[in-house]
Amino acid sequence: MIVSKSIKDSVAVIGMGCTQFGELWDKSATDLMIEAVQETLGVVPALELNDLDAYWLGTMGSNSGLPLAKALKTGYKPITRVENMCATGSEAFRASCYAVAAGACDVAMAIGVEKLKDSGTSGLVIPDPIRDGTFSEMTAPALYSMIVPAYCKKYGVTEQEMKEVLTRIAWKNHQNGSKNPRAQFKNCPDKDMIAGSPTVAGQLGVLDCSGVADGAAAAIVVSADRASDYCEHPLYVKALSIATGSGQGTMSPEYDFTTFPEVVESARRAYSQAGISQPGDEIDFAEVHDCFTPTELVLMEDLGFSERGSGWRDALAGRFDLDGDLPVNPDGGLKSFGHPIGASGLRMLFEVWLQLSNSAGERQISGVSTALTNNLGGQPGECVSFVGIFGSEPG
Amino acid sequence: MIVSKSIKDSVAVIGMGCTQFGELWDKSATDLMIEAVQETLGVVPALELNDLDAYWLGTMGSNSGLPLAKALKTGYKPITRVENMCATGSEAFRASCYAVAAGACDVAMAIGVEKLKDSGTSGLVIPDPIRDGTFSEMTAPALYSMIVPAYCKKYGVTEQEMKEVLTRIAWKNHQNGSKNPRAQFKNCPDKDMIAGSPTVAGQLGVLDCSGVADGAAAAIVVSADRASDYCEHPLYVKALSIATGSGQGTMSPEYDFTTFPEVVESARRAYSQAGISQPGDEIDFAEVHDCFTPTELVLMEDLGFSERGSGWRDALAGRFDLDGDLPVNPDGGLKSFGHPIGASGLRMLFEVWLQLSNSAGERQISGVSTALTNNLGGQPGECVSFVGIFGSEPG
Repeated sequence: MIVSKSIKDSVAVIGMGCTQFGELWDKSATDLMIEAVQETLGVVPALELNDLDAYWLGTMGSNSGLPLAKALKTGYKPITRVENMCATGSEAFRASCYAVAAGACDVAMAIGVEKLKDSGTSGLVIPDPIRDGTFSEMTAPALYSMIVPAYCKKYGVTEQEMKEVLTRIAWKNHQNGSKNPRAQFKNCPDKDMIAGSPTVAGQLGVLDCSGVADGAAAAIVVSADRASDYCEHPLYVKALSIATGSGQGTMSPEYDFTTFPEVVESARRAYSQAGISQPGDEIDFAEVHDCFTPTELVLMEDLGFSERGSGWRDALAGRFDLDGDLPVNPDGGLKSFGHPIGASGLRMLFEVWLQLSNSAGERQISGVSTALTNNLGGQPGECVSFVGIFGSEPG
Repeated sequence: MIVSKSIKDSVAVIGMGCTQFGELWDKSATDLMIEAVQETLGVVPALELNDLDAYWLGTMGSNSGLPLAKALKTGYKPITRVENMCATGSEAFRASCYAVAAGACDVAMAIGVEKLKDSGTSGLVIPDPIRDGTFSEMTAPALYSMIVPAYCKKYGVTEQEMKEVLTRIAWKNHQNGSKNPRAQFKNCPDKDMIAGSPTVAGQLGVLDCSGVADGAAAAIVVSADRASDYCEHPLYVKALSIATGSGQGTMSPEYDFTTFPEVVESARRAYSQAGISQPGDEIDFAEVHDCFTPTELVLMEDLGFSERGSGWRDALAGRFDLDGDLPVNPDGGLKSFGHPIGASGLRMLFEVWLQLSNSAGERQISGVSTALTNNLGGQPGECVSFVGIFGSEPG
């Protein structure tokens, strides 16, 4: 399929920054953007602000690039705002990569920001005048909770076993997040506390859900052949793919809540672009969209890390732990960071940037050279899935 | 400056479609998208829907690409939604061009749609949680009306002369629109009716303002070297540029309402990309953002079509008429079409497509080979400007 055409090794990331995530009442979106950009420029001494040729801003909090222009005083540089639900940050990054690969600019910046705590946006389902009304009133936790009974039924997992799996996933991500100074939640709830947390929807407790947060992250993209002029450890882009579901829709009686077809398809294309045939072996670690614990479970199978129906056993066995075979969400994930929509995709990439340049401190995984990010938007039955694959070698 | 790097002659448009614009109470946004896509595919017999590799959707009416996925049943094809205020349609097109030029896909579709009549969006100033509050409560007509006294004062134009100029611009665009079956307003108000139309803001009457409308338009982009395989008259992309103002802001006492610096800068870059030194001579016709009549006046100078302070005389002399030296808005412009935000930039491009393939019927301008579109977003003092330059020759 043509949609797996590749820009493999055309472009690379040469610097990144990421703010503290959390309830940042004393900081505006402008403050957060400036902070992320300053950190990013700080790691690329050869570049100043005015060397950035064009920007892609991922946010749901503006209808244009103007807030970034005003925050940074960018003169009349091109700024384009993109939004694709919770995959918005990754879309800003993808657009930057295409512009550089096209030769339209030399130095592009992708930046994602959201200030959710002030805006009263308490959930992830946003009113949308041109979509049909189905499910508009159902919250994200309720929709994702429907994975649980579907998975149990299909694979003969008991309710008690499933509770242990979901608890294990939340516990693992909080363990990782406790090692991350930028995470919103740095506490380590024990398994009893997670399992006993108040119910939000279906079998999901509050500690199965990611939180609402403020935050920003940014990346500078240049062509791969110039990347080593700017930094010692460029992050080379091996694959970028987006799949948007046209959806049977969540309400369809045929809809199977144990898989996201969009993730399967975007992963298939990304592996094809990157030349990866055994993802479970060839990917060293991954940052995935753990908006709810059952989401992470299903993603392990959709991304090809676990066989169908065995993701739950792999999770329980610790395969995705920081010291496991294939660490997942070493930075603590959405679980520890919360989910400022436009920022999350770039926050995932930031962990890849740190790990592949051997700068992840207490969380550093040894001997890693290939990583994946998977950023999901929407809900089971109608979603958009981004998969990016990154490597420390120019290829 | 690096921001004038060029993808000149890398990509081309091989098919376009555009719906009727207007108060389309009996059509949904979905209907409009399907109609635009069907017309577009209809002019490219070699392609079917499934041959489109990726989509960029320009709209303010959704937070994702899902509505397009559901409308077209696109399977899991990539769909990215972009929004940059009133330049949204042009941004969808720019993103498609970069993706094809990058080699990320072979066949891309840009589509713009808006269904404004149903949504109650009566103006163009949209609430924006992360921008500062300045001018949020001032309507677009009020902001643009401030051009009139500033221009009169700077260039010693009398109020009566200015009234004639603005009336002439509205009259010219309505004359052109009356020859366009897809326009919202096909009537030809005479000059007395325009000049006497009820005041909206400052010296602007209702017939100085573009209307609110529903509509959609779409374009298929491929690499330039394959374009002639698909169609007889491809439209070659010579330049694409965006400038986002970081703005003194409209309220600044220094702000000069007789120019949009964003337009000047985006035009400068576009001319540099396309290798154009005498725009007034080398551009055969233009589609520009005539949201209000004084906007078109200022754009003539900012785009280099008229000397500073003489745009008003050129307009009065008929230089921009359909049979003038440099026809502007031959399709009738925003004035005749109204302004369904996401669709307008692609509607402008549609006229370029028709004219350069000698298919503009009663409006056909003879001997044209190079055209410009200028799509503006925002307001004087803080805006985004897109300039595209297109040619009938592969270069």
